[in-house]
Amino acid sequence: MKRTSRDIRTANRYEVLRQIIAESPTSRQELAAATGLSLATVATLVGELLDLRMITEVGFEDSAGGRPRGLVAVNASGGALIGVDIAETYVHVELFDLALNILARAEEDVRPGESLPEQVVGHVAAAVGSVVTQAGIEGARVLGVGVSVPGQVDRATGISEYAPNWDWHDVPLLDLLTEHIAYPLYLDNPLRAGAVAETWFGAARGRGNAVVVNLGTGVGAGLILGGGLHRGVSNSAGEWGHTTIVLDGRLCHCGNHGCVETYVGAPGIMLNLRELSPRSTLLHPEDQTATIDALARGMLTNDPVALKVVRDTARYLGAGIADLVNLFNPEVVVLSSWVAATLGEPLVAEVREAVARHALPRPMAATEIVLSPIPTDPVCLGAATFALEGALQSVGQRNGKKRTTLTRSRTAPPS
Amino acid sequence: MKRTSRDIRTANRYEVLRQIIAESPTSRQELAAATGLSLATVATLVGELLDLRMITEVGFEDSAGGRPRGLVAVNASGGALIGVDIAETYVHVELFDLALNILARAEEDVRPGESLPEQVVGHVAAAVGSVVTQAGIEGARVLGVGVSVPGQVDRATGISEYAPNWDWHDVPLLDLLTEHIAYPLYLDNPLRAGAVAETWFGAARGRGNAVVVNLGTGVGAGLILGGGLHRGVSNSAGEWGHTTIVLDGRLCHCGNHGCVETYVGAPGIMLNLRELSPRSTLLHPEDQTATIDALARGMLTNDPVALKVVRDTARYLGAGIADLVNLFNPEVVVLSSWVAATLGEPLVAEVREAVARHALPRPMAATEIVLSPIPTDPVCLGAATFALEGALQSVGQRNGKKRTTLTRSRTAPPS
Repeated sequence: MKRTSRDIRTANRYEVLRQIIAESPTSRQELAAATGLSLATVATLVGELLDLRMITEVGFEDSAGGRPRGLVAVNASGGALIGVDIAETYVHVELFDLALNILARAEEDVRPGESLPEQVVGHVAAAVGSVVTQAGIEGARVLGVGVSVPGQVDRATGISEYAPNWDWHDVPLLDLLTEHIAYPLYLDNPLRAGAVAETWFGAARGRGNAVVVNLGTGVGAGLILGGGLHRGVSNSAGEWGHTTIVLDGRLCHCGNHGCVETYVGAPGIMLNLRELSPRSTLLHPEDQTATIDALARGMLTNDPVALKVVRDTARYLGAGIADLVNLFNPEVVVLSSWVAATLGEPLVAEVREAVARHALPRPMAATEIVLSPIPTDPVCLGAATFALEGALQSVGQRNGKKRTTLTRSRTAPPS
Repeated sequence: MKRTSRDIRTANRYEVLRQIIAESPTSRQELAAATGLSLATVATLVGELLDLRMITEVGFEDSAGGRPRGLVAVNASGGALIGVDIAETYVHVELFDLALNILARAEEDVRPGESLPEQVVGHVAAAVGSVVTQAGIEGARVLGVGVSVPGQVDRATGISEYAPNWDWHDVPLLDLLTEHIAYPLYLDNPLRAGAVAETWFGAARGRGNAVVVNLGTGVGAGLILGGGLHRGVSNSAGEWGHTTIVLDGRLCHCGNHGCVETYVGAPGIMLNLRELSPRSTLLHPEDQTATIDALARGMLTNDPVALKVVRDTARYLGAGIADLVNLFNPEVVVLSSWVAATLGEPLVAEVREAVARHALPRPMAATEIVLSPIPTDPVCLGAATFALEGALQSVGQRNGKKRTTLTRSRTAPPS
């Protein structure tokens, strides 16, 4: 099947670059051993990456008695990648070198009432301009900008079809961004950005089956299945936040009742707190970040209300994550995004116990539940990785092969 | 990656045989056009299938002006395959030729209290002996027996780890079967058998992403994702029946509360009926089949209790299937197994409406919900297909490649 062979070629190209990023310098022989690819295939792929200046020859090492082996390393300064994490309460932008080191970052708050598409795009444009200036690099060296936006995204058309927390419907986000940003743009959502970040750099490295649970204002799951990102037939797989755990339960903005998100998204956690203790000083009405921060501090001081709210939330998470364990039978469930990062290991410990109460023994025994080990914003990193993957896909095109990517990349003169 | 290349080779072999079974006679050129494979690859795979006597040369067709093209067809009589569907209330066994035509079938009832492993194995052995005798074929021509058993199965060890409706734990089923059956055995569960049957012969043909929902005594989902069967890391993916839709709801035999299965498995439907109308004449206590049959007849005569029970059940199914639509974003959801077949299109119509009330618009728009079009027992057919796939995998082994299948096949002298 042609499509599949080409997919494998692309996956192999990613795998070789991943390995070089993880361990530079390295030889073609080491790469072949680490990836299981033939030396001839590795040599071809290394040649393509050298042509793209993503990697560089850095000398030779002796091999016991044999010919010296050529070494390659990632060409960190061979280009820059930008990752944009548009969330309900903030826009984070980070600029990376090709080794995915952060060279600059910028953050803008998105306050309630500032969620019109033009306003959000303004924040993105300002922050992208800021990181390029901070890093002091020429625009020509920016290989691409990956943009993550919550909700359901049509990658082919660049349209944000539905962002429930802002009630966006069919917003032509890529067109709006293109008016301000002249680099190639790659649009997707935080579920997929988080999953790609964990696959390249985090807890899903080398795992064929992994679920990356995004816990923020909205919640969802990035799915790594059978070694690859599962997008579904219209790029909207992973909407775990809108699966039902309480039939006829809390009303969700999606129109359904009892969705996971209404209990474990940041506003859902605030509601859990309000129901338990309406006048708690932990509660900062209208401020999700402050409330989750207060809960995290409360847990450290054994505040009984904080402990109870986190336990209640873990109970819902336990049922919802057990559903993922029973359905997908993954090797690892990674808890990611800002709510998970803020509540940290104490939350994860509660969640592990709660999942074990709901899941079947066989898939439970095969799964570990961990906090994302990525120290920075995984969604920015994943979005930048989409830009890196986009640049890698261009190899096939330059060799005259038919373009198959659905990503719309607009190559325009740098600003 | 070596593993992936070999997987693709196996998948291509399946695809070519599927195409030949669907359309015999056919030429290598037509096969290349239909599968997207190169003519050279098709020629190699056709050669392997000819060596295995699974297909045969059947003459030539003229090609406009060119050389006459060799035609091949499935060699229906080149071997026999047996499919065994062990369910909570029956054992179905069917014997197929290589075109997957049924040559013989046998059925044994499993009555309450007859569910010890030895009793069930006795039913299987009797029915397998019966179909071979009925078909009048030599034992040597049986290429294999696929066996589907409910619950969680370790294919590598042949152990039924957990069959909740019978409370089986770690039953060495393959060892027990081997004492009575001398053909190569392939063990798996009905979720995967149903999914494979739909992929080869049913509503999932040519669909890369499909969910096959099994509605019987137990319920679950067979997952076709990214073009292949998704098993998960320990062959226990798809346990949709044990996902939570009513937190703290009905107690399930798995130990969890509010599992989908407690509302939409046959015993759950009986409970829905009992809660609505405790003395209904539709209810046949202790007899699932009779009760579901009575509900089906009641719907045809507009019996208000039957209509209400099916609508209530569809409401639970709506929430549970919407979870699958939102998580997997499949092209098609296929309703299969005996409860779906008995309640038929009227159930499917109710389910479609109910799913649309719960699912997100984008994945919902990409999904159709259909009844399995397979007129016979899809689990028998799927189990026989596992035996066919097992025989096809032996090609790679004969060519000296490393054995990678986890299926335990015991080749023993035919009885």
